[in-house]
Amino acid sequence: MSSPSTEKVLRPDTGRRDPRADALRVLAIDAVQHANSGHPGAPMGMAEMAVALWQGHLRHNPANPHWADRDRFVLSNGHASMLLYALLHLSGYALPLEELKRFRQLHSLTPGHPEVGITPGVETTTGPLGQGLANAVGMALAERLLADEFNRPGHAVVDHATYVFLGDGCLMEGLSHEACSLAGAWGLGKLVALYDDNGISIDGPVTPWFADDTAARFRAYGWQVVGPVDGHDVDAVSAAIAEARADTQRPSLVICRTTIGRGSPNRAGTAKVHGEPLGEAEIAATRAALGWPSAEPFEVPEEIRARWDARRIGAARETQWARGFAAYRAEHPALAAEFERRLAGHLPYDFEETLLRTLAEFGQSQQAVATRKASQRVLGMIAPKLPELLGGSADLTGSNLTDFPGCGAVRAGRPGGRHVNYGVREFGMAAIMNGLALHGGFIPYGGTFLTFSDYSRNAVRMAALMKQRVVHVFTHDSIGLGEDGPTHQSVEHAASLRLIPGLDVWRPADEAETAVAWTQALAAAGRPSALLLSRQVLPAQSRTPEQVIAIRRGGYVLSDRPGAVAVILATGSEVAIAMAAQALLDQRGRPVRVVSLPCTTLFDRQDRAWRDAVLGSGLPRVGIEAGVTRWWGQYGCAAALGVDGFGESAPAAAVYEHFGLTAARLAEQVEAVCAEAGAAAAARA
Amino acid sequence: MSSPSTEKVLRPDTGRRDPRADALRVLAIDAVQHANSGHPGAPMGMAEMAVALWQGHLRHNPANPHWADRDRFVLSNGHASMLLYALLHLSGYALPLEELKRFRQLHSLTPGHPEVGITPGVETTTGPLGQGLANAVGMALAERLLADEFNRPGHAVVDHATYVFLGDGCLMEGLSHEACSLAGAWGLGKLVALYDDNGISIDGPVTPWFADDTAARFRAYGWQVVGPVDGHDVDAVSAAIAEARADTQRPSLVICRTTIGRGSPNRAGTAKVHGEPLGEAEIAATRAALGWPSAEPFEVPEEIRARWDARRIGAARETQWARGFAAYRAEHPALAAEFERRLAGHLPYDFEETLLRTLAEFGQSQQAVATRKASQRVLGMIAPKLPELLGGSADLTGSNLTDFPGCGAVRAGRPGGRHVNYGVREFGMAAIMNGLALHGGFIPYGGTFLTFSDYSRNAVRMAALMKQRVVHVFTHDSIGLGEDGPTHQSVEHAASLRLIPGLDVWRPADEAETAVAWTQALAAAGRPSALLLSRQVLPAQSRTPEQVIAIRRGGYVLSDRPGAVAVILATGSEVAIAMAAQALLDQRGRPVRVVSLPCTTLFDRQDRAWRDAVLGSGLPRVGIEAGVTRWWGQYGCAAALGVDGFGESAPAAAVYEHFGLTAARLAEQVEAVCAEAGAAAAARA
Repeated sequence: MSSPSTEKVLRPDTGRRDPRADALRVLAIDAVQHANSGHPGAPMGMAEMAVALWQGHLRHNPANPHWADRDRFVLSNGHASMLLYALLHLSGYALPLEELKRFRQLHSLTPGHPEVGITPGVETTTGPLGQGLANAVGMALAERLLADEFNRPGHAVVDHATYVFLGDGCLMEGLSHEACSLAGAWGLGKLVALYDDNGISIDGPVTPWFADDTAARFRAYGWQVVGPVDGHDVDAVSAAIAEARADTQRPSLVICRTTIGRGSPNRAGTAKVHGEPLGEAEIAATRAALGWPSAEPFEVPEEIRARWDARRIGAARETQWARGFAAYRAEHPALAAEFERRLAGHLPYDFEETLLRTLAEFGQSQQAVATRKASQRVLGMIAPKLPELLGGSADLTGSNLTDFPGCGAVRAGRPGGRHVNYGVREFGMAAIMNGLALHGGFIPYGGTFLTFSDYSRNAVRMAALMKQRVVHVFTHDSIGLGEDGPTHQSVEHAASLRLIPGLDVWRPADEAETAVAWTQALAAAGRPSALLLSRQVLPAQSRTPEQVIAIRRGGYVLSDRPGAVAVILATGSEVAIAMAAQALLDQRGRPVRVVSLPCTTLFDRQDRAWRDAVLGSGLPRVGIEAGVTRWWGQYGCAAALGVDGFGESAPAAAVYEHFGLTAARLAEQVEAVCAEAGAAAAARA
Repeated sequence: MSSPSTEKVLRPDTGRRDPRADALRVLAIDAVQHANSGHPGAPMGMAEMAVALWQGHLRHNPANPHWADRDRFVLSNGHASMLLYALLHLSGYALPLEELKRFRQLHSLTPGHPEVGITPGVETTTGPLGQGLANAVGMALAERLLADEFNRPGHAVVDHATYVFLGDGCLMEGLSHEACSLAGAWGLGKLVALYDDNGISIDGPVTPWFADDTAARFRAYGWQVVGPVDGHDVDAVSAAIAEARADTQRPSLVICRTTIGRGSPNRAGTAKVHGEPLGEAEIAATRAALGWPSAEPFEVPEEIRARWDARRIGAARETQWARGFAAYRAEHPALAAEFERRLAGHLPYDFEETLLRTLAEFGQSQQAVATRKASQRVLGMIAPKLPELLGGSADLTGSNLTDFPGCGAVRAGRPGGRHVNYGVREFGMAAIMNGLALHGGFIPYGGTFLTFSDYSRNAVRMAALMKQRVVHVFTHDSIGLGEDGPTHQSVEHAASLRLIPGLDVWRPADEAETAVAWTQALAAAGRPSALLLSRQVLPAQSRTPEQVIAIRRGGYVLSDRPGAVAVILATGSEVAIAMAAQALLDQRGRPVRVVSLPCTTLFDRQDRAWRDAVLGSGLPRVGIEAGVTRWWGQYGCAAALGVDGFGESAPAAAVYEHFGLTAARLAEQVEAVCAEAGAAAAARA
């Protein structure tokens, strides 16, 4: 077999021991052993780095993990979760020892990977490699933009650093390239990344598959690179962090040479120590090698605990900041109130009015527009009233239409700007947006073509898992994009995004539905949304005021007929086809109902009565969406029109025709389904 | 608005004109204008680069696009498709002018982005940025491995270069980092990438969002960097390519400074020229500026055509190679035959026997194993008989169990090895596998955790679009992975992979189904497969020989009961739960049928009779899969057990219990559904 490798990578180090670091080691190996699951190697290897940062630099207050101006700390190599839990526990966060003993158990505060919202002091959910680093870039960008917006002479109310620990895995992931290239271009001087350079990944010593000169790579991004330093020398790491902080114009990478599993006599430096409990014998040997004073699992001597306890200094720091903020409030009361609102994630007090105006403006729109254009028009109305809205695009601004009048571009060294050019970096954009949302102060949205949601998919998932309000503007949402062909034509993407738990997926049919999609996405504080928008122009549908209001239910009867014999379910650009089919069927004396389903995920959360009333009962149903048809089974459709293979390169109208997505075909399909239903009923009778 | 930018980036150039380059320009702008859609800027900017490569270096034979030892050419910035079509047309491939006039029309040979299998001479489908580059890395790796395996002293039957054109977009994508870092680590000396450094992307001049020192970045990967050279100077580019080729130990990046849209007096150097037709007036102005001799669209003077025609030299080159191959065959007849078989993509003549032995060995297996372990055991049997099988893992070899006895590792500077350590690079792995498959000579497979299929998703899609036999081994396929928690637990992934057209998704229940999954995946020449495998041990099911044979239908009756009152549909690890529920229901006098659906995509392609016979008619159905339940609607399930939110960090058994995925709950659900069906029947009667 080519693995597992038993080769060792041991870094020379000063040999000095710091009992604070060993406390982290002991808690980590004991918890992993107790759980009989987890990753001891990384916590052991990064223990001194953690001491250097958390005891020497990190400004935080264990009593208030939500202090607005705290430094942010991200553990991008999230499998080292026990390092973070040990740090939080020893520093004095509300994470008692009992929870460390429940590491990786159901509903503990110490899940296998750090999860924001579960554990006090955890800033983001990490584990999928590279994403924590990209989140950190988003947090550092948020800090810079908020500082630009809210600080005033003599009042640096926003002034904190973002620190991130990362390993070889994060650096191998392509996402690290996207995020760090942007951090360099943006000159995020308060971002400090500490690289746990242990030369080992799961498959063994990394050089055969990871031979990058990482320092040179990061210099190429415009970063300051500090080190390599001995990652087991607390003073050396601390000095390197100070050097990193001293450069305020460039993000910094501190390269810390470490030995994975340091302290374990037999496993240090091996791939084996990465993801397996040490076992009782090796734990005893490790305790002995460390000269650890207690044989009892989880026991940390009081004097070491006392050195770790950060509650007093943390409280003092926040108090000092709060005094400064009080002075700021005295001078700039409106700004202070706005800052607090923004950080709390509350919408403006008059936002309800903005929403109502938006509906008033667009709810009865008779404008035939592409929904991407409708989205831009809606943004033009809402964005001026919602300063936290921070847009962007992965180099498709003019296609996604994510900009709005007066938005201005976010640029290095220039304050202001509410639209981010993320470059051709879909995954980076999505993960950075998660960081912006997690930091607080912003509702980020960003655009790309729907097909390239594939590139960013796991970050979209992470937004849902973390319950973050992030809006994905996915335009060119089907074969309707035409000539660019199957590589760019989404067929499975709408259906597959709808499968991500907690994500709302909107596919509006016209300007009115687009307006509602935006308002609902912005109002959904605990969930991300994806807006799937057409490249092509779509006709406006007519609605009563009640129907306009019903859009927010995710599904509603758009057009009914007395004595309807069937129901057509449609989304987005196919709603117009459904309406045309209804007209054809009217002529043939076959009245049908048309249901528009702009947001099935939201519709599915409506009460049963609403859903039944909309879908009707006893009537055969036919679905239409320019995508995979098997998706319609869940709505009891007897048939569906869609696209079950890949698309074709041709003008949009020709592609629609080719795939039979036409009113005539739909009408035929409805008639066939009615005939079948009639025959079945006759057979039963 | 922050866009579109009208700023220009114009590169100083020698000003010398090459009529061959202008022929490419004219064909590109005429075709885009004719289609009223497409991307003129990149073809115009890369025209001299194309002349330098195609007229000075590329070894190819227009009459035989499948010549085994041709140089490979990849247009990673696939939106420049008209450049490639013009090159193929003028070089003498079977791509007549009429097809250029049908650019981007339905069923033409000239779709919006290059598509392999449609246009002779197109090596891979490109458009989704970064992937062509990664495909090229895979092709260059294939070349190296085949050369190691088949060349003999005096017989370099495999000796060709891989060339790739790429732009800023490809370099911004994270995938470029993954693929190029690996190319450097592997020392792929015959890979030459030409970077169209035009300083413009869709949002405008790139420096605010793409400030990398790309040369330094690539040196950090261990690449040779040549240039920057004047990309509009054919001789300079040609000399740079020669320099690139001279370094046989390192891949090379040739940086070509170009002006996008060069030749267009008013649009050169702008973002606007990237993706819009020039318009008649600007086309006329461009013709004038170029001094182009003809005003007629698509007209290329004979003398320029003659200079482009590569048919004679191409045929001569292949003939020369064929003579060498004949000599090789004379000396090494078995090797020559094997080489031809491998390149043709035919399985070994005795492979049927291997498959039968595999079934004989595992079809009646009563071994309780994790299906990832079963997969490794199957590999251990098949791989020695299938030398084209080339494995790998994204740094999870010991978890994915993708290695097999004696596989050996692929390493730089060392021949042999059939397992690739891709590092933590899921997307890179998938896209490189596509390149390996496209090159020919290999059936690549690679492993990661199922959740991280998100990272590689678009490359999985591209394999399906390109009809390539690539096998994705996705292990740890559900909440059954336990403690690692929701970031690592797939819930929507099985369902969402099944939506990708043309991909077969296997989720085997035990060792027998795993063996069939592998044999079917390997036999499926025109389609990729994904094997979703459990981390946890699964019991073996008993089957008659007929049932073993039926596995390859993708769905079959695993256990029936006379007078069954309901059908349970299950996949993978939940089949055992279904069987246990059946036993419970037996005790309660409620006989039920259990259907195993190891590959629903394949099952869906079976004839109606088979599907109806398996699913039964008139009986209520209940589905169970440790994932999203809405997916079951398409099989007419009245209810389903699964996981509709995110997972939980806890031991696997606890997580299953927490989500109610137990035999007891399933039995209850079946009884409830039967009661409902009974009540409905009574109401009807």
